[in-house]
Amino acid sequence: MSETPIRVTVWNEFLHERSEPRVAHTYPEGIHAAIAEGLQQSLGAAVVVRTATLEQPEHGLSDDVLAATDVIVWWGHMAHDRVSDATVDKVQQRVLAGMGLLVLHSGHLSKIFRRLMGTSCQLLWREAGERERLWIVNPSHPIVEGLSGEYFELPQTEMYGEYFDIAPPDELILISWFEGGEIFRSGCTFRRGKGKIFYFRPGHETYPIYQDANVRRVLANAVRWAAPGGSRYFGEGRQIVEPLSPISGRPA
Amino acid sequence: MSETPIRVTVWNEFLHERSEPRVAHTYPEGIHAAIAEGLQQSLGAAVVVRTATLEQPEHGLSDDVLAATDVIVWWGHMAHDRVSDATVDKVQQRVLAGMGLLVLHSGHLSKIFRRLMGTSCQLLWREAGERERLWIVNPSHPIVEGLSGEYFELPQTEMYGEYFDIAPPDELILISWFEGGEIFRSGCTFRRGKGKIFYFRPGHETYPIYQDANVRRVLANAVRWAAPGGSRYFGEGRQIVEPLSPISGRPA
Amino acid sequence: MSETPIRVTVWNEFLHERSEPRVAHTYPEGIHAAIAEGLQQSLGAAVVVRTATLEQPEHGLSDDVLAATDVIVWWGHMAHDRVSDATVDKVQQRVLAGMGLLVLHSGHLSKIFRRLMGTSCQLLWREAGERERLWIVNPSHPIVEGLSGEYFELPQTEMYGEYFDIAPPDELILISWFEGGEIFRSGCTFRRGKGKIFYFRPGHETYPIYQDANVRRVLANAVRWAAPGGSRYFGEGRQIVEPLSPISGRPA
Amino acid sequence: MSETPIRVTVWNEFLHERSEPRVAHTYPEGIHAAIAEGLQQSLGAAVVVRTATLEQPEHGLSDDVLAATDVIVWWGHMAHDRVSDATVDKVQQRVLAGMGLLVLHSGHLSKIFRRLMGTSCQLLWREAGERERLWIVNPSHPIVEGLSGEYFELPQTEMYGEYFDIAPPDELILISWFEGGEIFRSGCTFRRGKGKIFYFRPGHETYPIYQDANVRRVLANAVRWAAPGGSRYFGEGRQIVEPLSPISGRPA
Repeated sequence: MSETPIRVTVWNEFLHERSEPRVAHTYPEGIHAAIAEGLQQSLGAAVVVRTATLEQPEHGLSDDVLAATDVIVWWGHMAHDRVSDATVDKVQQRVLAGMGLLVLHSGHLSKIFRRLMGTSCQLLWREAGERERLWIVNPSHPIVEGLSGEYFELPQTEMYGEYFDIAPPDELILISWFEGGEIFRSGCTFRRGKGKIFYFRPGHETYPIYQDANVRRVLANAVRWAAPGGSRYFGEGRQIVEPLSPISGRPA
Repeated sequence: MSETPIRVTVWNEFLHERSEPRVAHTYPEGIHAAIAEGLQQSLGAAVVVRTATLEQPEHGLSDDVLAATDVIVWWGHMAHDRVSDATVDKVQQRVLAGMGLLVLHSGHLSKIFRRLMGTSCQLLWREAGERERLWIVNPSHPIVEGLSGEYFELPQTEMYGEYFDIAPPDELILISWFEGGEIFRSGCTFRRGKGKIFYFRPGHETYPIYQDANVRRVLANAVRWAAPGGSRYFGEGRQIVEPLSPISGRPA
Repeated sequence: MSETPIRVTVWNEFLHERSEPRVAHTYPEGIHAAIAEGLQQSLGAAVVVRTATLEQPEHGLSDDVLAATDVIVWWGHMAHDRVSDATVDKVQQRVLAGMGLLVLHSGHLSKIFRRLMGTSCQLLWREAGERERLWIVNPSHPIVEGLSGEYFELPQTEMYGEYFDIAPPDELILISWFEGGEIFRSGCTFRRGKGKIFYFRPGHETYPIYQDANVRRVLANAVRWAAPGGSRYFGEGRQIVEPLSPISGRPA
Repeated sequence: MSETPIRVTVWNEFLHERSEPRVAHTYPEGIHAAIAEGLQQSLGAAVVVRTATLEQPEHGLSDDVLAATDVIVWWGHMAHDRVSDATVDKVQQRVLAGMGLLVLHSGHLSKIFRRLMGTSCQLLWREAGERERLWIVNPSHPIVEGLSGEYFELPQTEMYGEYFDIAPPDELILISWFEGGEIFRSGCTFRRGKGKIFYFRPGHETYPIYQDANVRRVLANAVRWAAPGGSRYFGEGRQIVEPLSPISGRPA
């Protein structure tokens, strides 16, 4: 509703791309760059996008950067444990205070996602370049705005299967079918504190997932959906001394 | 996201106002006019608002009107049974096809709301001009956008109490406290088909509820939230002959 | 928790079995008989099972039968419209008053299920004898009690696909994968009034689904889960005259 | 369904009772003893109850005790931080593996509850001995089994108010009304991994809450509900090498 651009920070581990040639081939400037480019193209002046990576000082997530971030996008895979607990604490606090969070693909095992879920976030997987169909099961949701059919498809993906050990989603938006025999809850929303969280399964370091038009559309929609909003209250606990109504057991 | 104005139809039974002087005093041009005025003031060029009432031909809801309505607001109380089943059928079809629906106060017993819930929609009530506090329990939701505190208050209202026999809400946004001893789930969302539904408790024929600034803000937010959106598919069942993958039991 | 047996009525249209030889071959005494037999074998003295069919007087669902039913199981396909509205009204009232309801397979288009959902209940389908895998996504739920793996499988089934136009389930328990490329929300719970509803996808007139051990286990678990329980209040609306607390605007 | 007794461990901080005479007066043997007594009386041979307290070695929660616990009940208030992280880790793992957890009253700020929610779990509070009415909003739920009215009442309680910063409950069962002007989501269920969690608001160190018959009934019902069950699978992630179906991009 606001004219102010949404300030997005795309965070990426950025390790695969620098050590594995086939990853570098798909994502020459890093997965973060491809995601940032997609958001910029889809949302234009409605967003300002920056990126941050693991090996930058404070993982690129200084207090100033976090304070200037409305929605953070998270991609990690092989180095979840190298993210400092101090950074995870700060990101969690910002989410509870209203910052949106998009967790992508292997980010399911990131510290920040496990912290916000309270569960193991484990799942089944197989790397066999199989076909994935993402079926829409919540067709009026803004996260699927403008998608044209009952589903969309990715020709080659890593499989993720259930049981996916997450908190039950507030809203289930997409369910994946995989050629080899599995299904997966691939698009899930969660509200925590004043923050909105979207887990989105697609994405892999060697398949060109973040170049896909439907994936880009979902990500752009999710950024809009996850942008801070709602009431102005931030939910800090406190003692309330004066009641509205008289209390019978109490001296007047 | 679109620049096209949201087309709103405010539907009102419009009987109390013409037969009871104290209602006419509060709502001289009808409850619908007060609601329409509030939406127009809050949303400006983002909406085009019309009204419709029970005693108009086809209750003011011809096929043309419904086809040109993005969000319908529903206020009824003493004449739910006078709404024709044909009109209820058409409104239900439009909701399932994507039209938003805001059901207000005593509209809980309207045919259209009971039809969409599948339940009795009964509740407890008392008319004693008591104070109501509406507490926000989903602070990041766009329906409470811009509200300034943990709650807002109405000085004199009719009480509604639980058990409110509705389908469990998809999202519970507001819970009311009443001076006399009751609570109520006062702001509830439901998705049905491609349509979004918001039940909002406040509103009465003799208290000036729809002039209240917070009530007007919630209604304006809810109109934005309920406007059609999402994927382009409308969920019509059909037979699928050709599978994507080969099926083992089948001749190739 | 109670020692009293759960009184189950298995309702079946019972038309396919009498007109199509291959259906008669799979279900010589009717689908209802196979379901009843499975429940009796699984639950023993914990249940008393009777059956009822479309062409019996009052569809086998007289007031006495309904009053003596704790859980009703519903199978219909080709003659949903032949079920009288009066019977649907009575079944709905009983569900809202606490009777459990299990809706099976093509029962998704039954009047009673559409009435309780408020939606079209449409879906996609294909008859190609394809393999179905039902994945458990709510592993602690009593409806999957005792199932041994992450999923169970049916070698040949009719496919049902999304978008399945239902109210969002309160709990999603099973998601199906189909060989030909679709997924489906196959095990869903809904609470309406004091009644519990379980929609369970498997079942077809020509595949021997209701002889399958896992299907029988789910049905037996679901009967236990859906049996009446909870608080003693039935949710009838009424006026409350005397408040608990003094109300400020009121003469004392 | 099983004849095997449910093994319950009631955990209590047990500090207030030893330092404050008025607490010792209400709970001479500790809050844990009063809760254990209530469960034993309500459930008889269906449970085996033990207790554990903060200052015991390993807080009374050795690996052996946890391995022999089906449902743990948690009461803490002034010393949440003195519970070791190692114990919290172990309790969380047990919950994810299927152990039930009942979190009572001020346990909302316990490490284990905050860990499982992912949020701050903050709320508003006031100590004024005011009246609380707990309204049932999910009347068919087994946790309110046998309660006789639309609500039950506690004559003097500490108030807890919203916004209560928790994950949105899977099921909302009770909402409290407080004399002084607040409401609270007082009975909430959550599923995490294979474990079931129930947060129940009532309980205070100086009011005789755990002697109340309705509170005792809810606690007994909740123990039954939270006992381990469901499918036999525990949701450990792993790689799946062999697909069910042939994958097109793969060598046969």
